[in-house]
Amino acid sequence: MSDKGKQVAVGIDLGGTAVKIGLVDASYEVLAQTSIPTNGERPYEQVIADMGNTAAALLEENGYTVADCLGAGVGSPGIIDSENGIVLYSNNIQWDHVPLADVLKKYLPVPVFVQNDANCATLGEVLKGAGKGYQNAVFLTLGTGVGGGIVLDGKIFEGGHSGGAELGHIKCGSERRRCTCGRYDCLEAYASATALIDDAKKMAEQHPDSMLWELCGNDLDAMNAKMPFDAAEAGDSCGKTLVENYIGYLADGITDLANIFRPDIIVIGGGVCAQGEKLTNPLNQYLRENCFGNAVTYIPQVVIAENGNHAGLIGAAGLVYQHSSELSG
Amino acid sequence: MSDKGKQVAVGIDLGGTAVKIGLVDASYEVLAQTSIPTNGERPYEQVIADMGNTAAALLEENGYTVADCLGAGVGSPGIIDSENGIVLYSNNIQWDHVPLADVLKKYLPVPVFVQNDANCATLGEVLKGAGKGYQNAVFLTLGTGVGGGIVLDGKIFEGGHSGGAELGHIKCGSERRRCTCGRYDCLEAYASATALIDDAKKMAEQHPDSMLWELCGNDLDAMNAKMPFDAAEAGDSCGKTLVENYIGYLADGITDLANIFRPDIIVIGGGVCAQGEKLTNPLNQYLRENCFGNAVTYIPQVVIAENGNHAGLIGAAGLVYQHSSELSG
Repeated sequence: MSDKGKQVAVGIDLGGTAVKIGLVDASYEVLAQTSIPTNGERPYEQVIADMGNTAAALLEENGYTVADCLGAGVGSPGIIDSENGIVLYSNNIQWDHVPLADVLKKYLPVPVFVQNDANCATLGEVLKGAGKGYQNAVFLTLGTGVGGGIVLDGKIFEGGHSGGAELGHIKCGSERRRCTCGRYDCLEAYASATALIDDAKKMAEQHPDSMLWELCGNDLDAMNAKMPFDAAEAGDSCGKTLVENYIGYLADGITDLANIFRPDIIVIGGGVCAQGEKLTNPLNQYLRENCFGNAVTYIPQVVIAENGNHAGLIGAAGLVYQHSSELSG
Repeated sequence: MSDKGKQVAVGIDLGGTAVKIGLVDASYEVLAQTSIPTNGERPYEQVIADMGNTAAALLEENGYTVADCLGAGVGSPGIIDSENGIVLYSNNIQWDHVPLADVLKKYLPVPVFVQNDANCATLGEVLKGAGKGYQNAVFLTLGTGVGGGIVLDGKIFEGGHSGGAELGHIKCGSERRRCTCGRYDCLEAYASATALIDDAKKMAEQHPDSMLWELCGNDLDAMNAKMPFDAAEAGDSCGKTLVENYIGYLADGITDLANIFRPDIIVIGGGVCAQGEKLTNPLNQYLRENCFGNAVTYIPQVVIAENGNHAGLIGAAGLVYQHSSELSG
């Protein structure tokens, strides 16, 4: 054990662009952090070697030996076989049956745990964030896609088999929008930032007088998920319609999840959530009015995620601490 | 202990019309069964007194003493506080915060467990039925409404708070159909037998030449959920459209549940399920084509429930056996 006299876990957030690597203590504080480019087009062995070597160097730079390291958790996009630490399939980094845990151990010889990245972010928010102290939480991340995670009795719920807890892939609208998963009309096709931006572009094309044009500098390719909210705030009718529809889709998905899981809390994260109460106020109102048995049952609050870019790291490290407490408990 | 030298559990299925009461052994065989009218308009104390006295008499008639009885499980419609054995709210029997367990114990002095009736039916199918041997199952019952139940790791999952596992109350269509729960467009408003019958009546009204008229004897009030399937089988285009739409709605709901829970198996029950493979074949095909990650993940089979009218009884008794094995294990 190092002279710091305490142990750490490595948390790794594997993204399409960058790999974030952090040292996380037992209170889920991030003690040190670094980031390297993913360069996911390389053979996976190289990507994982960089990941492991960088984590080992980060430990050393901060005065920890490998023996001080309880283990490493990795949050990966895609469908994960968490029992065997295998990335079964990731569209994001084009991995197919990659034995991530086994390869990483070659470069960082500690116990390795692999989970879906949205599941890690969910766990992170429960361990230290907007869901702290709650045992049952549902998390939705509204970004390029819609990711989801479920924590039941304090632990990640993945479903009975790989491919569960895919909360972005429940039925939402009825416009026959093709989802990235191949099915039509998933929540992701309506409530992702990508979907909101696409809707805003279409709306602008149909309404040459909309303020959306001014906000995007007359360049539809510059449209982002904030602009519809800004337009709505300024009284633009196109902006108002976009925001109302978007919140309606999201409210429907969240109400489904409340009726299924009836969790303590529902946490939403991702870029769109910078809108804060402009999202949570109408979502909470919809839930209060539409949850099953709303007159006699507990209605979970919708709150904004707090861990931001750290959520994946913290949750990945949380896998390590949960596992080691199980072994010692 | 009686001279039969073994113990039994009482399983009670509280319905709007009748209360079914059975003696169930540890292999989940129903040893004896009786039924009494609910007469739910009476004060709840009377309903529960009848229930308890009838169960006590059934035990005695079959050579069991109260001491031979491990406990009683009750499956009740509505929103249940299972921890305290209270029926929080049941639209079906107009109960509001009824302390079912405490009152029943006055007439049948054994441990009493109360659960939602659909949850009991789900457990029944896992203990002895179409889901036997599986640890993770989702159950949908297609009747007057759409009930649902979830078994995870062999146990009923109710959600974090009362009002969870309401699988009939997830978003489905987009016709602004008002659901019994107050929300619009729930699965129940499209995939219940009631919804199918309503759709068939409307379809017949619009198509005076449809075979549906002949099947219902020119009396729309005589329409049932079998007639659209019979019409479709005979080549009637209205029947075909009704069945196709109905299966489409159901397939969407089932795919949502597969993407969320990725269970071992999905069991469907209720009157509509007499259609057997006419339902399960297209549902399974839809799942294979539309489940998230269908190329690399486990796709649960959809199968028809096997316990029929016994499902609630068996599951309710299962609550008793699960609890007593926990106490002794």
